[in-house]
Amino acid sequence: MSKTIAIYPGTFDPITLGHIDIIQRAVKLFDQVIITLAVNPVKEPMFNSAERKEMIEDAVKGMDNVSVEQYDGLIVELAKKRGATVIVRGLRAISDFEFEFQMALMNRHLAKEITTVFLMPHEKYTYLNSTIVRNVASFNGDVNKFVTNLVAEKLKSKAKK
Amino acid sequence: MSKTIAIYPGTFDPITLGHIDIIQRAVKLFDQVIITLAVNPVKEPMFNSAERKEMIEDAVKGMDNVSVEQYDGLIVELAKKRGATVIVRGLRAISDFEFEFQMALMNRHLAKEITTVFLMPHEKYTYLNSTIVRNVASFNGDVNKFVTNLVAEKLKSKAKK
Amino acid sequence: MSKTIAIYPGTFDPITLGHIDIIQRAVKLFDQVIITLAVNPVKEPMFNSAERKEMIEDAVKGMDNVSVEQYDGLIVELAKKRGATVIVRGLRAISDFEFEFQMALMNRHLAKEITTVFLMPHEKYTYLNSTIVRNVASFNGDVNKFVTNLVAEKLKSKAKK
Amino acid sequence: MSKTIAIYPGTFDPITLGHIDIIQRAVKLFDQVIITLAVNPVKEPMFNSAERKEMIEDAVKGMDNVSVEQYDGLIVELAKKRGATVIVRGLRAISDFEFEFQMALMNRHLAKEITTVFLMPHEKYTYLNSTIVRNVASFNGDVNKFVTNLVAEKLKSKAKK
Amino acid sequence: MSKTIAIYPGTFDPITLGHIDIIQRAVKLFDQVIITLAVNPVKEPMFNSAERKEMIEDAVKGMDNVSVEQYDGLIVELAKKRGATVIVRGLRAISDFEFEFQMALMNRHLAKEITTVFLMPHEKYTYLNSTIVRNVASFNGDVNKFVTNLVAEKLKSKAKK
Amino acid sequence: MSKTIAIYPGTFDPITLGHIDIIQRAVKLFDQVIITLAVNPVKEPMFNSAERKEMIEDAVKGMDNVSVEQYDGLIVELAKKRGATVIVRGLRAISDFEFEFQMALMNRHLAKEITTVFLMPHEKYTYLNSTIVRNVASFNGDVNKFVTNLVAEKLKSKAKK
Repeated sequence: MSKTIAIYPGTFDPITLGHIDIIQRAVKLFDQVIITLAVNPVKEPMFNSAERKEMIEDAVKGMDNVSVEQYDGLIVELAKKRGATVIVRGLRAISDFEFEFQMALMNRHLAKEITTVFLMPHEKYTYLNSTIVRNVASFNGDVNKFVTNLVAEKLKSKAKK
Repeated sequence: MSKTIAIYPGTFDPITLGHIDIIQRAVKLFDQVIITLAVNPVKEPMFNSAERKEMIEDAVKGMDNVSVEQYDGLIVELAKKRGATVIVRGLRAISDFEFEFQMALMNRHLAKEITTVFLMPHEKYTYLNSTIVRNVASFNGDVNKFVTNLVAEKLKSKAKK
Repeated sequence: MSKTIAIYPGTFDPITLGHIDIIQRAVKLFDQVIITLAVNPVKEPMFNSAERKEMIEDAVKGMDNVSVEQYDGLIVELAKKRGATVIVRGLRAISDFEFEFQMALMNRHLAKEITTVFLMPHEKYTYLNSTIVRNVASFNGDVNKFVTNLVAEKLKSKAKK
Repeated sequence: MSKTIAIYPGTFDPITLGHIDIIQRAVKLFDQVIITLAVNPVKEPMFNSAERKEMIEDAVKGMDNVSVEQYDGLIVELAKKRGATVIVRGLRAISDFEFEFQMALMNRHLAKEITTVFLMPHEKYTYLNSTIVRNVASFNGDVNKFVTNLVAEKLKSKAKK
Repeated sequence: MSKTIAIYPGTFDPITLGHIDIIQRAVKLFDQVIITLAVNPVKEPMFNSAERKEMIEDAVKGMDNVSVEQYDGLIVELAKKRGATVIVRGLRAISDFEFEFQMALMNRHLAKEITTVFLMPHEKYTYLNSTIVRNVASFNGDVNKFVTNLVAEKLKSKAKK
Repeated sequence: MSKTIAIYPGTFDPITLGHIDIIQRAVKLFDQVIITLAVNPVKEPMFNSAERKEMIEDAVKGMDNVSVEQYDGLIVELAKKRGATVIVRGLRAISDFEFEFQMALMNRHLAKEITTVFLMPHEKYTYLNSTIVRNVASFNGDVNKFVTNLVAEKLKSKAKK
């Protein structure tokens, strides 16, 4: 079997320990994992794409076969360019489920040869996402259990004074 | 039994093959189907109401007993004016389910004599909606399997250059 | 438009006010409603099919254009025999949703010309079903708000002494 | 057992009969209930916080051991200040479920000694929320079955003319 | 406020750490907690009611204001006899949700003065239940992380040899 | 990266085109796929394990790197024996979701080094499962679109005469 390259796309505003958990699982399964950062997500992000990229790179430093890339286009197009045949997605709860299946089916229509693979994060991250982390941090709540040190610092610097 | 008139309300930004599938099913069940276009939906639409109406009319041309109407008000009020006793809704997935039931119950409170009828689109449209079509089209992705030719063209003309 | 005949299939072990609510809505929409009773449901019923039929007939007496029929086969086959083009199903909560969609899709594969129409019962019946009625009645709990008088009596006669 | 103080947080834009139903249940369970009003919710509210507070106070006047408070911070911090050990939340439908569990888990991480207690509103409020009430009222629809008289008036004064 | 007595009903076949987690939360909220064991659950239990009671009593020994009781009837009837005004239920995942709401609504119809309170177990027990514990144990899988020592032993003695 | 071996466990009573769709996706992702057949599933199967194995083997003949194995024990134990690090599961609809997550979390507790990977079948199989196939076939309904020829024949031979 030839080398399998996987893409893990997201907005990562900011990256959480839940995302990192998925990346660690993907790394064990596939030969290379490309974390793809949506430059222009639908909603106005808290962090610009350079900041988000810096936080991801900090989080995955030391992991082999992981790279980070900004992208502004269809994921399946990037996958084709990079020779990736897998899209990795974390699957947590019901609301995820619907959205993720929708994206996966659309991506399959756009590029049949690419498979979306769903991985389940550790149950302690079941209800964790970037939005709730931003909300808590905006009130100076402690988010150290949910993000890396660098992200915690950056969130603190954006919190209400 | 007297003639049964049904209303199929929506934003149709733009109309998809999933919507058309529901319309085709409704036409078989009821004597007349009025497609009602929300002029001012909550979120800023990609297409203005004239464009959305044009695309719907193009999609249903040739279907008997189907009309298209713009409306800015409570659906149940329009139903009363038109003598409609049925509201048709497509029901696809879980997130739909909640919202649709909420609307249907509210409409029942507002007008007891009107019944909401849920129809299930073809399973190939299970995870299709206007939002994902707009997203894919905005990156010049191929949406021909999901919309009419006219809609595909109009989406193309709005895509990122 | 020709006469529309609808089938409302179920086990009705026993019929509840939630079922009757759906029948009343269906009667307004379609020219004829045939309530179809599964003679041999998967699980051992509390009431035999004669008893279940008696309770349904009692519940719908006085309703025009409603009949009750026992059947042991594929619903779509009965629909074809009776000239029915609609299958009516009540849709309450999430667990319903999955099962109902599965049945509806299978029936569509078996007979394309038949449409499954989902109706929403009154919200006071959202969480009502035959199983919970049987359970409560088996402990001599009061189920008068959930079933007809005849059903309440018959349940009482089967309750633990 | 010492006095148990509960916080019932929300945006209340505006308060509905569903909220009031939950408050009435909470009052029976706990010695004191503090209704906490988010001053700056994520989305732009229809009513400012003074208006929302006025409508809540009107709704709970005559209830013992209930107070209303505006707050702009983490709920768990307020709970600590007030000696509250319970956060009360209404739980209606699936979409609630996910969000509520996420908030409850985050609050538990932030303050272990505080318990989130979920109460179920009357089934007639299953699908009621502030958003749908605002939508209906904006079209001059009748919302008297869903809100207090004061709220109905205030909604009317904001409706489209 | 007078003493609040809560009932925590279940089959407990066998009791798991998820159940114990809920009991510990309930004990903090209410003055007394009565764990009620269904003597004759719908499905044939693995352990008879005496065994199940023994395992519960072992699990809660040392907890103040907790008692265990076998019961064969409607929970609301027992609640009335014991002066309990609260029924406690753990709420984990979607399938729970439906069933629990159904039971809670039925109990409310049967006894208006009794409130069902839902508590959320620790997220590490989100997907734990007695059935999966029995399944794993039946193949001699290690269930020590999910049950007490006594339960683990009893499961081992029933496992396939 | 060393060879990745995946296990695809199930009851396969009988194997459907939905299962085969998942197997075909798994074969592209992993170096070897072992289909594992539960010899003694919880419920009485329609087909004995020899029949179920024969139907699976017929369905996958010609696929490289796929084997079929009967097993009566914990999947993670088999995985260890075979050097498998992946468990493959199809994920369709909501009811699946809960059960699958529960199994995956339990398996992770039992064997940390094994990852459960969820794959999404073609949307035309979204609502397909073995139970509904058996039901339809038992009434002599046409299941050719859902199963292989061999399975269709075997089902026919078990149908009501």
